[in-house]
Amino acid sequence: MSERISVGVIGATGMVGQNYIRLLNDNPWFEVAYVAASPRSAGKRYREAVAGRWHMVPDIPSRVGDLIVEDAGNVHSALGKCSVIFSAVDMEKEAVRKLEMEYASKDFAVISNNSAHRHTEDVPMLIPEINYEHCDIIPVQRKHYGWSKGLIVVKPNCSIQSYMIPIHALLQKGYRVARMIVTTLQGLSGAGYPGPSSLDIVDNIIPYIGGEEEKSENEPRKVLGKVIGDRISPDESLSISAHCTRVPVIDGHSACVSIEFAGSKPSLDELKEVWRSYRSLPQELGLPSAPRRPIIVREEIDRPQPRKDRDAENGMAVVVGRLRPCKVFDYRFVGLSHNTVRGAAGGAILMAELLKVKGYIG
Amino acid sequence: MSERISVGVIGATGMVGQNYIRLLNDNPWFEVAYVAASPRSAGKRYREAVAGRWHMVPDIPSRVGDLIVEDAGNVHSALGKCSVIFSAVDMEKEAVRKLEMEYASKDFAVISNNSAHRHTEDVPMLIPEINYEHCDIIPVQRKHYGWSKGLIVVKPNCSIQSYMIPIHALLQKGYRVARMIVTTLQGLSGAGYPGPSSLDIVDNIIPYIGGEEEKSENEPRKVLGKVIGDRISPDESLSISAHCTRVPVIDGHSACVSIEFAGSKPSLDELKEVWRSYRSLPQELGLPSAPRRPIIVREEIDRPQPRKDRDAENGMAVVVGRLRPCKVFDYRFVGLSHNTVRGAAGGAILMAELLKVKGYIG
Amino acid sequence: MSERISVGVIGATGMVGQNYIRLLNDNPWFEVAYVAASPRSAGKRYREAVAGRWHMVPDIPSRVGDLIVEDAGNVHSALGKCSVIFSAVDMEKEAVRKLEMEYASKDFAVISNNSAHRHTEDVPMLIPEINYEHCDIIPVQRKHYGWSKGLIVVKPNCSIQSYMIPIHALLQKGYRVARMIVTTLQGLSGAGYPGPSSLDIVDNIIPYIGGEEEKSENEPRKVLGKVIGDRISPDESLSISAHCTRVPVIDGHSACVSIEFAGSKPSLDELKEVWRSYRSLPQELGLPSAPRRPIIVREEIDRPQPRKDRDAENGMAVVVGRLRPCKVFDYRFVGLSHNTVRGAAGGAILMAELLKVKGYIG
Amino acid sequence: MSERISVGVIGATGMVGQNYIRLLNDNPWFEVAYVAASPRSAGKRYREAVAGRWHMVPDIPSRVGDLIVEDAGNVHSALGKCSVIFSAVDMEKEAVRKLEMEYASKDFAVISNNSAHRHTEDVPMLIPEINYEHCDIIPVQRKHYGWSKGLIVVKPNCSIQSYMIPIHALLQKGYRVARMIVTTLQGLSGAGYPGPSSLDIVDNIIPYIGGEEEKSENEPRKVLGKVIGDRISPDESLSISAHCTRVPVIDGHSACVSIEFAGSKPSLDELKEVWRSYRSLPQELGLPSAPRRPIIVREEIDRPQPRKDRDAENGMAVVVGRLRPCKVFDYRFVGLSHNTVRGAAGGAILMAELLKVKGYIG
Repeated sequence: MSERISVGVIGATGMVGQNYIRLLNDNPWFEVAYVAASPRSAGKRYREAVAGRWHMVPDIPSRVGDLIVEDAGNVHSALGKCSVIFSAVDMEKEAVRKLEMEYASKDFAVISNNSAHRHTEDVPMLIPEINYEHCDIIPVQRKHYGWSKGLIVVKPNCSIQSYMIPIHALLQKGYRVARMIVTTLQGLSGAGYPGPSSLDIVDNIIPYIGGEEEKSENEPRKVLGKVIGDRISPDESLSISAHCTRVPVIDGHSACVSIEFAGSKPSLDELKEVWRSYRSLPQELGLPSAPRRPIIVREEIDRPQPRKDRDAENGMAVVVGRLRPCKVFDYRFVGLSHNTVRGAAGGAILMAELLKVKGYIG
Repeated sequence: MSERISVGVIGATGMVGQNYIRLLNDNPWFEVAYVAASPRSAGKRYREAVAGRWHMVPDIPSRVGDLIVEDAGNVHSALGKCSVIFSAVDMEKEAVRKLEMEYASKDFAVISNNSAHRHTEDVPMLIPEINYEHCDIIPVQRKHYGWSKGLIVVKPNCSIQSYMIPIHALLQKGYRVARMIVTTLQGLSGAGYPGPSSLDIVDNIIPYIGGEEEKSENEPRKVLGKVIGDRISPDESLSISAHCTRVPVIDGHSACVSIEFAGSKPSLDELKEVWRSYRSLPQELGLPSAPRRPIIVREEIDRPQPRKDRDAENGMAVVVGRLRPCKVFDYRFVGLSHNTVRGAAGGAILMAELLKVKGYIG
Repeated sequence: MSERISVGVIGATGMVGQNYIRLLNDNPWFEVAYVAASPRSAGKRYREAVAGRWHMVPDIPSRVGDLIVEDAGNVHSALGKCSVIFSAVDMEKEAVRKLEMEYASKDFAVISNNSAHRHTEDVPMLIPEINYEHCDIIPVQRKHYGWSKGLIVVKPNCSIQSYMIPIHALLQKGYRVARMIVTTLQGLSGAGYPGPSSLDIVDNIIPYIGGEEEKSENEPRKVLGKVIGDRISPDESLSISAHCTRVPVIDGHSACVSIEFAGSKPSLDELKEVWRSYRSLPQELGLPSAPRRPIIVREEIDRPQPRKDRDAENGMAVVVGRLRPCKVFDYRFVGLSHNTVRGAAGGAILMAELLKVKGYIG
Repeated sequence: MSERISVGVIGATGMVGQNYIRLLNDNPWFEVAYVAASPRSAGKRYREAVAGRWHMVPDIPSRVGDLIVEDAGNVHSALGKCSVIFSAVDMEKEAVRKLEMEYASKDFAVISNNSAHRHTEDVPMLIPEINYEHCDIIPVQRKHYGWSKGLIVVKPNCSIQSYMIPIHALLQKGYRVARMIVTTLQGLSGAGYPGPSSLDIVDNIIPYIGGEEEKSENEPRKVLGKVIGDRISPDESLSISAHCTRVPVIDGHSACVSIEFAGSKPSLDELKEVWRSYRSLPQELGLPSAPRRPIIVREEIDRPQPRKDRDAENGMAVVVGRLRPCKVFDYRFVGLSHNTVRGAAGGAILMAELLKVKGYIG
């Protein structure tokens, strides 16, 4: 694979956009060739556009720093520069929806972090290990909108990876989870920059995150759904209650989860083995961003912890621990995933890698 | 009430002991006249014994600073100095159990923060608003052990106040809660001093607290139990699952709670009104440490927060918020209580005030 | 003193304004009768105007919550409602300067937290213990601008109290400090709300605060100046170098200070005694907000600490510790003051109390 | 260089020892073949000896985890296993001194993090970029104690790297610094594990670190000294005053520094260029742990910041910023270095690499 695919990032100057720039810098398949943002950044070099507000720890990749930022709203400016668009624009939902459709109509494969198309019926919301089969809707989507090479796929919310991948491992082995009650303790970077005021989070927690509980409860149903005809039909059999809280942690979303099975349930040891041995299509295909071990089970009584476990497998693994019986449901455990890697830009890049192997991009 | 009752604090140099010294300093009914600790502190003035390890924000009350620390193990040293012993000794359970019995056998009313006697069948574990009637076991206790004026009462664990007082308000109105799943986000001071290493808690949370989940699940049953014959018979009808986590907050235990009713349930508005109007015996008796409003309901979407709400009613109120339907059980809410005040020394002092009015001490 | 003086707060909805509302609630001499802010808040009740952005821990004082917010730019709306204006408006410097002059021209005594008039030659910048004599410029000021009862006095920056009050105690005894090098570790609330992003301060410090070093170096000269003719002439004899840093502390500015004397210097013990015995006019007059002990000397090796010492004397004391020889200059020490109390609203209220006793207001 | 030199770590189970294990895992020249600790760990596999107290983020290197821990006090157990000993034992100074001498007497090259030998006159205290010439004392040392291949070199305290390397760059160009006043803001890991209690550091800073100011003031003199005859003669010409504080930052020591030159001084631009172009022997030799750029100058107004800059050049660079004139001395700046890498294990490994190239080990 001597040549990398040229990709673009729209909304490239924001926090999620910066995460794309950071993570794509090391990607063997993709290369950033186009960056776009709001009109007030357009025309500047990327380096200047983010001067004083580059929030990543590594410095701006030199090559990207030299790129001229385009106006994200001007779809034509991307033509000929790239075939894949990572969308991280920060606009009103309806505007995002239209803009992403416009890119797709111009033959771009749009891979979006935005929530705008998450409930569009023929747009797959992918966690590649779980619902890679939802890619099968893409030909339907293209036909529906009259696109030849364009497509739209979206990433679910950052809060659900820490429990949905462990749940999928169980489903893969034939165990059905009927109900779960989840409390999340979410890192600050999930709120973007500047996010919570420091005055609200030092010596404090905030027991509320706008819109997060609804997403954490509803998106899993689509992720676990099935392609039926020309739409993805959600799985209505799983009930989730999510309490979402913000804690003084830079990166990493933790979830305390109680689960109740429908039908038979594994023993504790069987369950751990299900998690330890869990592999799915991204691992089989050897996608560059796929974690070798998608689920890491820690035996220490006090793990996973965000600062110590969030970077496992370059931030792409889900780390679980504290599996034990629940006094009310069947089992409970703690799951952790890196919200800006697996839960955002990293997860989206993995989606793009999957689409490439499946022949939808490239 | 011109004369204050002389009280003693054993384990007075530790963190809980210091909290007693701090809170009793403002109490109109009690006055610290005896402080005791381990043999290595004995003989020193209290001020010297805690030099370099006084962890309270207000300075050592001057009068207590002058007291000579006695050996807590030498029960005779307390004779004639006080009639009430607040126990905060840090010893092995069996040793605590014996020592507290010995004080009781010498006519002291022992009010303990320790877990040693929490499951002794004829020792009441009191949250005064909830189970003041458990005081009725005291005559049985005295008869059983042959004590004339001695007694032992204990305080439950600091993690349960934030949800048990709200649950009791419902029980008081005839609603029965059958099951609850709770995730706590507990403050650092709950672990005593030094507690968690700063290296483990900056930019981190710890999803485990030794022994805390068992206490959070089991103690409520005794608190809600009934005096039947010569023992307190636990209420087995309530199932609780507790996930306990440690967060970088100095004081204040938060709980995210999902509850399922048995039988009828109130509407959301009725439930709020039940909490707002909740009063119990400590309020009726006007006990000095009793919060005027034992439950404070906040309407702001992002409250209660530890730093902003823990000191409500001098740290004796439980602050609740975010009441809303649960997608899996009936309702969910967030509760908060101050772990070193309501959940420890403050709660114990309220117990002593109750015992005084009931004629068991003084 | 049966009747309290009616005062107004302009910029009442911002963070500093809220601190005024909070602190004036307990003041025996003043009562808030007028609140004003930007036009978009005007016409609402104060309670509604700050809904969702009241950042104080105590709730909004009920009586102030009911006041109708006026447009701060409409000076006439204050007429007849109050005679003193605490200014905390957040506008461009030139606009602040004009607005404060306009209030003064209408007979209001303007006491300002804003930096706009700090270097106006006939406007005193007061730390009441240090330069109460600068009030003598007020008649000059009135004559200059043609005001009969109006006046303007300003408060210096929050960063200088922790070292200027200790320095003044030395000057009072005849010791002259020639040079000092100061590094401040400043709390988050000094930046207003929202202030630093939590993403920038968890597991981090920020070694820069815009404009703070210049203020910390220059304002002391005016504070220590003399009224000469119709202006306050700065003391040019003291050289200060200030490094200002932001640390993850809610409230409290710490300063590590090295000082070099000109001429004779006290011994360490003499210096401590100078600080311990320090009293000035506010103490002699018994002003309600004056700390009984303006400087508290702590002997513990690791004090002062912000969380433990900032509330000393209701946040109005400066707490010093670690006095020891300096290897380069003469001595060094650590000073701490509460930035939103002594360093902002509390210091300004003390100024108002001084002006009242001196007959300039009331 | 196909074969790696076998090295040992004594005190391998402690925090510094763990840092050695972590960093040596990636070293191309050295391989851990011997681990030793206190008698109670002896006989266990390293993995078991640190179970529940492995504080590094990466997991225990698998090969080291399998090693049997020896008793560090039993020097014979190291014979034949390694030729270099990294010493991180936690014992009384006198015991450390003897133990390190004993290892040296058995032909081991001892490279120590401990302060015991820092002021032994014929033991070099190395910052390889600054005083590599102090290695010339090793033959003297060997002769003095009668060692054939043994030697002892020590690492200075972690607090001084952030300012001494920038100062050395100036000396290298002929500029002499006469006096400096430094305030450090030091990370928590500098105190070892558990270090400060979380109760003392959340919403707080601690303005004192035991022994740190003395080390920060005195050690630079030896580092800048000269080998004269059979001893290293300290440079008495530089006066340093250090205020050392602890801040809630995991890793990274910051220093706010004011410097005064003796004789000529560079312009600000010249000074920056001196830093930017600074290279020394470790860079010329291409030592594996040597940072390509030992000093990184950041132009952003608010850098260096610990969380964003500590890992520069794998934690081996010193990052400086905010160079500007000082109002009292000549210039001031902020320096930052990673205390557990450059300031501890990483700096010591760099020393070993230097000794290898110079032929003293291997």
